[in-house]
Amino acid sequence: MNSTVTPLELRRAIRSGEHTGNTSGMAAGFVQCNIVILPAENAGDFLRFCQLNPKPCPLIAVGDAGAAALPELGDIDIRADVPRYRVFREGKMTEEVTDITVLWRDDLVSFALGCSFSFEEALLAEGLEVRNVSQGLNVPMYQTDIDCAEAGPFSGKMVVSMRPFKASDAIRAIQICTGFPAVHGAPIHLGDPRLIGIEDLERPDYGDAVLIKENEIPLFWACGVTPQVALTAARLPFAITHSPGCMLITDVRNSQLAVL
Amino acid sequence: MNSTVTPLELRRAIRSGEHTGNTSGMAAGFVQCNIVILPAENAGDFLRFCQLNPKPCPLIAVGDAGAAALPELGDIDIRADVPRYRVFREGKMTEEVTDITVLWRDDLVSFALGCSFSFEEALLAEGLEVRNVSQGLNVPMYQTDIDCAEAGPFSGKMVVSMRPFKASDAIRAIQICTGFPAVHGAPIHLGDPRLIGIEDLERPDYGDAVLIKENEIPLFWACGVTPQVALTAARLPFAITHSPGCMLITDVRNSQLAVL
Repeated sequence: MNSTVTPLELRRAIRSGEHTGNTSGMAAGFVQCNIVILPAENAGDFLRFCQLNPKPCPLIAVGDAGAAALPELGDIDIRADVPRYRVFREGKMTEEVTDITVLWRDDLVSFALGCSFSFEEALLAEGLEVRNVSQGLNVPMYQTDIDCAEAGPFSGKMVVSMRPFKASDAIRAIQICTGFPAVHGAPIHLGDPRLIGIEDLERPDYGDAVLIKENEIPLFWACGVTPQVALTAARLPFAITHSPGCMLITDVRNSQLAVL
Repeated sequence: MNSTVTPLELRRAIRSGEHTGNTSGMAAGFVQCNIVILPAENAGDFLRFCQLNPKPCPLIAVGDAGAAALPELGDIDIRADVPRYRVFREGKMTEEVTDITVLWRDDLVSFALGCSFSFEEALLAEGLEVRNVSQGLNVPMYQTDIDCAEAGPFSGKMVVSMRPFKASDAIRAIQICTGFPAVHGAPIHLGDPRLIGIEDLERPDYGDAVLIKENEIPLFWACGVTPQVALTAARLPFAITHSPGCMLITDVRNSQLAVL
């Protein structure tokens, strides 16, 4: 699918079931979102969890209870515009589906969270090499020993993604990402991984290990897998998320999220 | 001398010869400047050197040839408002004086360059510990193997200052200093000092060694000693600078230099 296609056209292809896979590299310049859908009775706690942990859980939009629309992100039907969904019951994934219209309920609240695709695009646009992109791999992600702030049933350790840079590029990456707090913002750590409870960079908890060249420093960003892990651990009776890499493509431009 | 005294009052005390020493910690909130004074025939090359090397040589103001005033920085007489000057002839320091009125010439051009006092104040204001400040030492400075861009007789290696931080504070220090390009801006390097030609952090080329605690990362900023070294190496027939630590106190607020 051509990356010059508009976000609306891409969502139409996704809505119709024509595209049901990964959205990486699609709709260049536009924000893609992590999606969490919860019953209203859990939504308040989850909202608070996001507000307490803005770096791993940067909230971009919240829908009304029962509403499938997210008008601030475009002409969206959240029940069909994500390529692939995961349905959780009692904390266990029971189905992976491409449409949740038949599962929709009047009490469901949709959360759209920022995703690292946006800041990776900003880094690439500034001429930095993003190793997972140049290696064609998923970014390596690690569970840390950093506790998230708790809200109701939601708690857990922060998950981070890692990208290595030489020092001068590390400084630029921090500068660039500082401008995008809505998509995880600046790294939360750099250098020695053991200081945040990561034993071995070669063995990520999620995604793929990437090459770290001599004289490169690992930079660690708060990661959108954090709320997914907190959600699973909460063992809610019912919850829906996007499937990894299969994001909601929005009409919001990455540049609209820039604060600098 | 009380730090709540205005910059003008401090300059008056300096002009009268009442204060002839270090200006560190004086006029909190106001920009202090490195000063270079050159004959007009060398001024064009030095201006170009500064513009080619903005991180070590952040130019804040340039006077007219023969003019002792720098009106954009306050009511200033550059011949008397610096506590202590160094006079160089044929590249050698020949005098250290507290007033250069008798040495003034119609062809002298004054350059005011940003200084790390401004960004150190910004770091302290954000709650970061600046080690040289908390240890009451001069910041450690090192010659690197990084070549400055050359302009006429001016060339040389970049000198950097070093301040150690734990990773999360290092990230914040980069964010904070990025907002102040007129006072050296963001660090130019972090981590392994050998990558920029520094063999031993315990043995600075200028200033004092500071404590580096476990799990701290050294951050390196381009330093205003760089133009001083380039100036000396140029062996000009005549040049004047401030004496180390004895800066021009201006009426410009540090916050006026912030670009973010």
